[in-house]
Amino acid sequence: MANPGPGNSITLRVAAPSSFTATSEIAAAVAAAGAAVTALDVTESHHDTIVVDVTCNTTGEEHAEEVKKALNALDGVTVQHVSDRTFLMHLGGKLEVVPKVPLRNRDDLSRAYTPGVARVCLAIAEDPAAARNLTVKRNTVAVVTDGSAVLGLGNIGPAAALPVMEGKAALFKQFANVDAWPVCLDTQDTEEIIRTVKLLAPVFGGVNLEDIAAPRCFEIEARLREELDIPVFHDDQHGTAIVTLAALVNALRVVDKKIADVRIVVSGVGAAGSAIIQLLKAQGAQHIIAAGRSGAIHAGESYNDQHRTWIAENTNVEGFSGTLHEALVGADVFIGVSAPNILGEEQVASMADDAIVFAMANPTPEVDPSIASKHAAVVATGRSDFPNQINNVLAFPGLFRGLLDAGASDITPDMLVAAAEAIAKRVADDELNASYIIPSIFDPHVTADVATAVANAAHAAAQSNAAQSTAAVPAAAH
Amino acid sequence: MANPGPGNSITLRVAAPSSFTATSEIAAAVAAAGAAVTALDVTESHHDTIVVDVTCNTTGEEHAEEVKKALNALDGVTVQHVSDRTFLMHLGGKLEVVPKVPLRNRDDLSRAYTPGVARVCLAIAEDPAAARNLTVKRNTVAVVTDGSAVLGLGNIGPAAALPVMEGKAALFKQFANVDAWPVCLDTQDTEEIIRTVKLLAPVFGGVNLEDIAAPRCFEIEARLREELDIPVFHDDQHGTAIVTLAALVNALRVVDKKIADVRIVVSGVGAAGSAIIQLLKAQGAQHIIAAGRSGAIHAGESYNDQHRTWIAENTNVEGFSGTLHEALVGADVFIGVSAPNILGEEQVASMADDAIVFAMANPTPEVDPSIASKHAAVVATGRSDFPNQINNVLAFPGLFRGLLDAGASDITPDMLVAAAEAIAKRVADDELNASYIIPSIFDPHVTADVATAVANAAHAAAQSNAAQSTAAVPAAAH
Repeated sequence: MANPGPGNSITLRVAAPSSFTATSEIAAAVAAAGAAVTALDVTESHHDTIVVDVTCNTTGEEHAEEVKKALNALDGVTVQHVSDRTFLMHLGGKLEVVPKVPLRNRDDLSRAYTPGVARVCLAIAEDPAAARNLTVKRNTVAVVTDGSAVLGLGNIGPAAALPVMEGKAALFKQFANVDAWPVCLDTQDTEEIIRTVKLLAPVFGGVNLEDIAAPRCFEIEARLREELDIPVFHDDQHGTAIVTLAALVNALRVVDKKIADVRIVVSGVGAAGSAIIQLLKAQGAQHIIAAGRSGAIHAGESYNDQHRTWIAENTNVEGFSGTLHEALVGADVFIGVSAPNILGEEQVASMADDAIVFAMANPTPEVDPSIASKHAAVVATGRSDFPNQINNVLAFPGLFRGLLDAGASDITPDMLVAAAEAIAKRVADDELNASYIIPSIFDPHVTADVATAVANAAHAAAQSNAAQSTAAVPAAAH
Repeated sequence: MANPGPGNSITLRVAAPSSFTATSEIAAAVAAAGAAVTALDVTESHHDTIVVDVTCNTTGEEHAEEVKKALNALDGVTVQHVSDRTFLMHLGGKLEVVPKVPLRNRDDLSRAYTPGVARVCLAIAEDPAAARNLTVKRNTVAVVTDGSAVLGLGNIGPAAALPVMEGKAALFKQFANVDAWPVCLDTQDTEEIIRTVKLLAPVFGGVNLEDIAAPRCFEIEARLREELDIPVFHDDQHGTAIVTLAALVNALRVVDKKIADVRIVVSGVGAAGSAIIQLLKAQGAQHIIAAGRSGAIHAGESYNDQHRTWIAENTNVEGFSGTLHEALVGADVFIGVSAPNILGEEQVASMADDAIVFAMANPTPEVDPSIASKHAAVVATGRSDFPNQINNVLAFPGLFRGLLDAGASDITPDMLVAAAEAIAKRVADDELNASYIIPSIFDPHVTADVATAVANAAHAAAQSNAAQSTAAVPAAAH
């Protein structure tokens, strides 16, 4: 069963006798029902009765109902009302669109709107590149979904996906001052999604694809990258890959091994798996074996889908064929982006000394992290209730901040590696240990560091492109 | 030539000798060059020299250049830099997207984003109507254009149209706390625009169509109104119609005539013209003649386009055929949404006593308002430098505020009339005169009054719909 958490926080308004022990009895009853009290406020006090707001974390709706019953069972106590703090927070949505310019009087209006705005429009009509300076395009990202693969919820559609996209947009602003707008499309047709994003592109400086089902998401990303002149990023793939690489860089510092030397086993050969493998190779990893449900991917077999085909061509130089468990024997690193509970203690024990285990299946990891840590030197998961959370929030805000600042038109592997290294470097030598290989998402510097690293990489890419195109164009053309 | 205005405001940084008369000489030179000084700040002062920032309204870029030359011609004076306040205001765009919820710590994140947000998504998946309460849909309007008919600039495309749409969105927030987002589509294909807006609809509670060329805009509006369950509004048509009706209601109060009795001539038989005629009839007007370039529209002729066909069927009961000038003889009201300078003094003089003239062609009215006011009792234009400006900003923010508050799915003529009446009522009896038939756009109550009136009309429409569907359904179905 899940632990009580703030995502399931409720506030119960409770009437009770005004006895000396009332509040402590209420708190005890809530705790006995398995919930964690986070706040207790007396909101009314009368001669004989008091009214108390009890806020507590539960495991979900059923549990909330149990807590309510437990309180009602106390002598003289009545629960008057239960409010759900998560729903309260969502009332009316989580975003607003606010003018950055004053509109106090007619002069302001004459500049921000007609007639003054006409000159700004003409300047862009004459020089389309001016749109980056004179409109929101400079700082704006579209968070695009079709609602087909939302969190762990699956295909819930665009309207039900909106709270996630709003949350993502809120994180963009909070962490990186990027203005992001949710685009929840009422279609799941690949071509229609591609076409629609292209039609919307004039307003945006970047596109973040989110929670779109595989394999549609790959085609959409690839085509939009090719056909648009703004960067397009599939966070479920590359965001995960960036933070995974950052964590691995630091985990290797902890165990004092080199990425070129270690044997890495990746469990999961879908979108995230291949994006991770791509980055590991860009960082110098030489010995990678990827395993799907039917075992290790190797060049001796042919595969139907492009990811496994690419993996077969780009990993497993030794041509190992066998199961995931067999591949793990003697391996230095396990990276799981696959399914819950596919490893036991035995498999972790079979790995090399000072093994590294990243069990990132959500919400239930590939192996229980407390069991894994009996044998592995470093363990990380995707969960916030264990140390070393691999969390995309470390990457995407700073990544897009850097892309927008540099006016980048594309995303290169160099930029992703630069982002990963910037995240890794936020953990100083004297902070680094097996329980702290990843900075906190509230580290006040991580986003700025990622942004700077990405912008530098983008400028370097632009210069190298310019140099190449200069070389390719005859001198007479200049 | 246009008058100097704040839309063409510049700031000149000027180095001058530190003599006692320097600033007054600078101000005099700017005035002599025909610009209007609005601010003069000494930003640096040294023993021999001073640096002054002179802000002034000009008529445009050429004029700004003349002002600069005039200053440079002064003895010892050098213009160091000229900045354009309109462009400065547009740097980086005019909107930002801001979280409405706190994201200070992990508990906040657990509610606004994963894992807590999943429960909100599920609630919407189970009951799609919940999206109105739990997402930005409740308060959000798409400002949609294809950039094909922007202000007086014509077909400048979606990127160059963006500053106008941002300005419109800023006005929505400033005047009515509506969150509006610019949607500038990179297509001018009618079907593709319709399809795209439908695909985007899950995020929005309303659609404001803006600066889309005729006749495409009519088909788009009609189809979207039919196919979407959120209100769709073409501001260039119905916004203008609302404010025109409001102005006419008050102008008739000034001259003490009744709308059912007056003879009204409308010049312009396109989108705005037919929208205005529709509202005039809804308000009880009986005698309307509309004229295009080839004269009065009448039932004796057949027309190719739907607007003129509709006008022929719904106006000119007397079957008058003749020119615009002939139609005006003895008319009580002229409403122009057509072309500059098509009326002279003689035509206004030929109208009935206490005539009303609304000359709304922009930027140059159908008749010079100072000439018109020699003979007409009330004159209004679309310009801000004459009394009685017919300005859509009086209508669209409050209209959408009311529609969103009522959760309206459609817009009825009743709602438009209600908006017009609310605007008209903002001018109290003791304020009303020939130069004040329309409230200021900075009237702090006009938006709220329009919103309330529209929401009441929407609730009435919903109740009448409910009553009708109750009546239509057999009792056994309940």
